[in-house]
Amino acid sequence: MNRVALIMAGGRGERFWPRSRKDMPKQFLTLTDDGKTMIQLTVERILPLINVEDIYIVTNKDYKNLVKQQLPDLPEENILCEPVGKNTAPCIGLGAVYIQRKYSDAIMLVLPSDHLIKYNSMFLKALKEGCQIAEKNENLVTIGITPDSPETGYGYIKFDSAASMGQAFAVEKFVEKPDLETAKEYLRTEEYLWNSGMFLWKISTILNNIEKFMPDVYKGLLKIQKAIGTTEQDIILEREFMKFKPSSIDYGVMEKAENIYILPGAFGWDDVGSWLAVERIKKTNEFGNIVDGNIITISTKNCIIEGGKKLIAAVGLHDLVIVDAEDATLICDKEATGEIKKVLENLKICNRVEYI
Amino acid sequence: MNRVALIMAGGRGERFWPRSRKDMPKQFLTLTDDGKTMIQLTVERILPLINVEDIYIVTNKDYKNLVKQQLPDLPEENILCEPVGKNTAPCIGLGAVYIQRKYSDAIMLVLPSDHLIKYNSMFLKALKEGCQIAEKNENLVTIGITPDSPETGYGYIKFDSAASMGQAFAVEKFVEKPDLETAKEYLRTEEYLWNSGMFLWKISTILNNIEKFMPDVYKGLLKIQKAIGTTEQDIILEREFMKFKPSSIDYGVMEKAENIYILPGAFGWDDVGSWLAVERIKKTNEFGNIVDGNIITISTKNCIIEGGKKLIAAVGLHDLVIVDAEDATLICDKEATGEIKKVLENLKICNRVEYI
Repeated sequence: MNRVALIMAGGRGERFWPRSRKDMPKQFLTLTDDGKTMIQLTVERILPLINVEDIYIVTNKDYKNLVKQQLPDLPEENILCEPVGKNTAPCIGLGAVYIQRKYSDAIMLVLPSDHLIKYNSMFLKALKEGCQIAEKNENLVTIGITPDSPETGYGYIKFDSAASMGQAFAVEKFVEKPDLETAKEYLRTEEYLWNSGMFLWKISTILNNIEKFMPDVYKGLLKIQKAIGTTEQDIILEREFMKFKPSSIDYGVMEKAENIYILPGAFGWDDVGSWLAVERIKKTNEFGNIVDGNIITISTKNCIIEGGKKLIAAVGLHDLVIVDAEDATLICDKEATGEIKKVLENLKICNRVEYI
Repeated sequence: MNRVALIMAGGRGERFWPRSRKDMPKQFLTLTDDGKTMIQLTVERILPLINVEDIYIVTNKDYKNLVKQQLPDLPEENILCEPVGKNTAPCIGLGAVYIQRKYSDAIMLVLPSDHLIKYNSMFLKALKEGCQIAEKNENLVTIGITPDSPETGYGYIKFDSAASMGQAFAVEKFVEKPDLETAKEYLRTEEYLWNSGMFLWKISTILNNIEKFMPDVYKGLLKIQKAIGTTEQDIILEREFMKFKPSSIDYGVMEKAENIYILPGAFGWDDVGSWLAVERIKKTNEFGNIVDGNIITISTKNCIIEGGKKLIAAVGLHDLVIVDAEDATLICDKEATGEIKKVLENLKICNRVEYI
């Protein structure tokens, strides 16, 4: 069966402010040493498995040009634009009905556009195995990440270690972000994995499940599918999308569906959730600093300094994140990166939209 | 006897980098809340005592235009330009021989241009008393500051508490910057005051002393005096200045001279020696921050943030100095301000003169 990929790139992440902006979200940023953007790396990673003509990007219409610029080899018709973000269920559904016009059925790999993977050959191996499982019956496959800490920022997936299929296990349930004590308990049981947001299924399987558990969305998707290629395409896409209630695929389908399998991934996954992630990704110098740009450091250690043309002199500092953008500079204690969103809130309240 | 003032404004202080630059030293910066520059405040402070026509500025030729811009009421001929800085003795000597062409003798008040004084009426009272003492005999008067801590960054002056003249005391000796233990001992004896660099004397008295203790400088000064107003003025000024060995008036004259009196000043003197001084001068908000410019602070306390147009977002910080200039940003721990000079050294070594 043919394999296609759907890369979700509509997010508006605020955690990389001031580099990430409303018109330049995280998936379009270069956060690694190799000069490539997150979405470029995501596409490059799966090319050994899927032809570029079969890779689709769903994004917000505001980002269409960014996608075109950053992925010039991708056919333009493979860029699907949501008129408005409605979380992952409508996004995945749109991809499914769009791709169905090319392949009546196919294995569909769904990936976020802003994660990193260290060991790509192992990742590809997992995907191949996932394809085999997804091809059988009406299976829904998700990739789970073996936790290395009781993270409270991720959803978890409970599996049944007694019910395996190859490397995969049957999923018992999806659970929301836990509190710390619950997360610790999850790790103790050894029966929970992190929800990576990566899925594999046949187009027919996911559409059948959407029809069953999200019938309103399914009806809308059929109308959209019918209009694709007609003069009414954009009007109907917008009208139907506006009607959708925002819903994640996890909540809308996975928490209710059957025949779900999880493949434990051990390929160095990183969701690059905040500036702190840069420390795991980029090269650190002898003082524990990561410096990029026009920087002078004196008696400074364990800092992340992302500069540009403007000179930044860091004197006597430790454990700070410093990010200099054209019109704004962030200086943040490493322990306080969770509060960067308060800066954005403040800017919104004060209508200082130029900084958002 | 007429009173004149000589304000020394040739310094190239580096401690206020990146605001202070080679072409914009501290005396021309606004470091207070009132929007006035240090040199403007210095002149304003003594206007009740001395006419603006009798206030002279000695500065480096590079700063002549800055002085003109910042002190438009000062007669242009009162701006004396050193071709090169040779410390305070040649500077004061130049002022003395220049002013002598207007007044054959006068009481001459010598002031640094980059200090602050909180209680100006008390300062003026001290100066008036100083003028009276300086007018008598061949007295040299200096203003001493009662120490509030064992500072190691200032010179000290030992006085004889048994030998007073009005509020003043006879000076026993000038001493260089001490180490901490010595400074503590000075405070314990109650016989040492900080050397403020402010002096009062008759022009004739200081020139007699220069003749006695610095005969080479004196000879050069006489040649300069003779050339003032002639076509050769600039050539001779430069030639003679080049020959002078750099020397402070303290080392060149005061440490050797007799008849020195010291007036203890209790008028809230501040030499504004580093960015930390801003904390003593400017208004602090409820979180202990001093913020100026386009700043957002989240969970941030006891910071000094001097911004401009560019947005600075400070998140989770404490006890930092952040100064944003057009082409450079300083981020410095309050305890490390002494290391700012290392930034400048680094810039010099790397020939990045545009930042100095």
